[in-house]
Amino acid sequence: MKLNQNESPYDFPAELKSEVLRRAGQRPWNIYPEFESLRLRTAIAESYGIPADGILVGNGSNELLSVAIATFVEPGVSVIFPSPTFTLYEKLVLVAGGTPVPIEFDPAGGELPLEQLLSEIEKRRNAVVIVCSPNNPTGSVLPPNGLHSLLDSGAFVLFDRAYGDFHTDPYPAMHENLVVFSTFSKAWGLASLRLGWVASSALNSREMRKVKLPYSLNAISEETAVVALENDAYRAANVASIVAERSRLAAAMSAMKDIVTFPSAANFVTFRPQMDSKVVFEGLCSDGLLIRDVSAYPRLANSLRVSVGSRDQNDRFLQSLRRITGAS
Amino acid sequence: MKLNQNESPYDFPAELKSEVLRRAGQRPWNIYPEFESLRLRTAIAESYGIPADGILVGNGSNELLSVAIATFVEPGVSVIFPSPTFTLYEKLVLVAGGTPVPIEFDPAGGELPLEQLLSEIEKRRNAVVIVCSPNNPTGSVLPPNGLHSLLDSGAFVLFDRAYGDFHTDPYPAMHENLVVFSTFSKAWGLASLRLGWVASSALNSREMRKVKLPYSLNAISEETAVVALENDAYRAANVASIVAERSRLAAAMSAMKDIVTFPSAANFVTFRPQMDSKVVFEGLCSDGLLIRDVSAYPRLANSLRVSVGSRDQNDRFLQSLRRITGAS
Repeated sequence: MKLNQNESPYDFPAELKSEVLRRAGQRPWNIYPEFESLRLRTAIAESYGIPADGILVGNGSNELLSVAIATFVEPGVSVIFPSPTFTLYEKLVLVAGGTPVPIEFDPAGGELPLEQLLSEIEKRRNAVVIVCSPNNPTGSVLPPNGLHSLLDSGAFVLFDRAYGDFHTDPYPAMHENLVVFSTFSKAWGLASLRLGWVASSALNSREMRKVKLPYSLNAISEETAVVALENDAYRAANVASIVAERSRLAAAMSAMKDIVTFPSAANFVTFRPQMDSKVVFEGLCSDGLLIRDVSAYPRLANSLRVSVGSRDQNDRFLQSLRRITGAS
Repeated sequence: MKLNQNESPYDFPAELKSEVLRRAGQRPWNIYPEFESLRLRTAIAESYGIPADGILVGNGSNELLSVAIATFVEPGVSVIFPSPTFTLYEKLVLVAGGTPVPIEFDPAGGELPLEQLLSEIEKRRNAVVIVCSPNNPTGSVLPPNGLHSLLDSGAFVLFDRAYGDFHTDPYPAMHENLVVFSTFSKAWGLASLRLGWVASSALNSREMRKVKLPYSLNAISEETAVVALENDAYRAANVASIVAERSRLAAAMSAMKDIVTFPSAANFVTFRPQMDSKVVFEGLCSDGLLIRDVSAYPRLANSLRVSVGSRDQNDRFLQSLRRITGAS
């Protein structure tokens, strides 16, 4: 039972899969995907009420993060980000020659360190900020209007909204200094198809297009995304189900006296057992449950992350966790 | 009629598409692709008789070229390549901080400039060589044993075999200083699915893996490649048909007195009309035929490139070309 990669516990519905496969079968496979992916970009634009000329699609949001950091970060640029967070950011900043400025925060509070980010931005000129909210691997979020404050400070903000649908924040309004990353992997449950998109101003998008390799999104994934967007109610239902299970899971874990959970607005719960986390991890493994050991991250010593599964998966996880920790 | 991107003129066979779609439908789309793509790498390894631990798969060979150049080229390294060739190489070398050393050659001869490459390698230490053979956009090839001579010279060779199946050279033997790029886009006719792979020593492969983003190949493209390799006879038949048409097309074009064709071992023919190539290009366009204007490349002034199409497409192209150039 795989609860280690924050995948959706539910497969894409059979009737939507069939529709994708039907359309995929009708396409010529010998022909390159459309150069500009205009059909998919238009579908995204209509769905989110943003202009298509500010959108790029790619092979998972990882590719687009890599493109954006290569485009907007150059040697000498400070890149400020909360820590712990998704480790890829720092790696990509270093590849681009930028200076990573991690701002450590305590995940117990449930919020990202907005004030420290702002004071760090004030100290530096032309700062780039990377924020993942809800944040991986903690589940913490920016406080209300946090993104607005960051933009007001004059920073250039790379905003990773991979887990955004599990939170109550609406999709942010476009801004010249804002680049927003989204994925079909989590809320849509389409991790196997590697589908991501990035939205910004038309100007920023043109700059990123110069860096991005062409034809990075295959035709079937493109078709899948179009079918997905035509069926947005599925995403909403999927998210509602996962959010409900998250509450139930987090409440049950918090009720165990030897477990501290960190507040999460994402599709996972990060927690610190009182006993050795390696023992908990191994114990779950021997019960057939794979979760993520996040104890190597700053401020997450002895901590573990479990993805929100289906009701049944969560019950099995809770039962196993109770057995291992001796919770009643 | 699209004859501008060297796509296969034939769609993947309906029964193979069905088999791919059947398998794709059975997979869980909510789960990330297998981290190491071991099943596909093993299938490639068995098909080509090379070890799986030297193989990486990716989202088209473009991605893997980008990874390899980022891995093996650093500031100060000279990267020698024949010119004209695929323009992506030089761009990626510049991004990596390497020094491009283009070796111009005359495409009329049909061979890549082996002697000049070797003498340039001799002048430089730690040179990296990039060779595409058959070469895009000329169709020229390395002379027999050319790759062997390059490796004997001590150079580190990035060998792009995108068009290799249309030539008589067998797949090269592995070598510590050799990295070979292959694609399913051309001979397999699977351009829409963005499937590439790279083979080298296990050591080189490990180094490239450190640079490559994980999960770059989506699950359906992976499934497609596995089905393709199980049906290698299809590729052989596809290649035989395209090579036969290439001979017929090139012979018919060479017979026109106002056209010079460059010898091609690939799935396209590059040619120089006596009249303004723009007029030829536009004339073909108005007949509904899109080919590639390659006149901006070195040594290809006033030249055009046409992909080998189906028999019918080639007939229509020849007819249109005769009309425009006034050939009888």
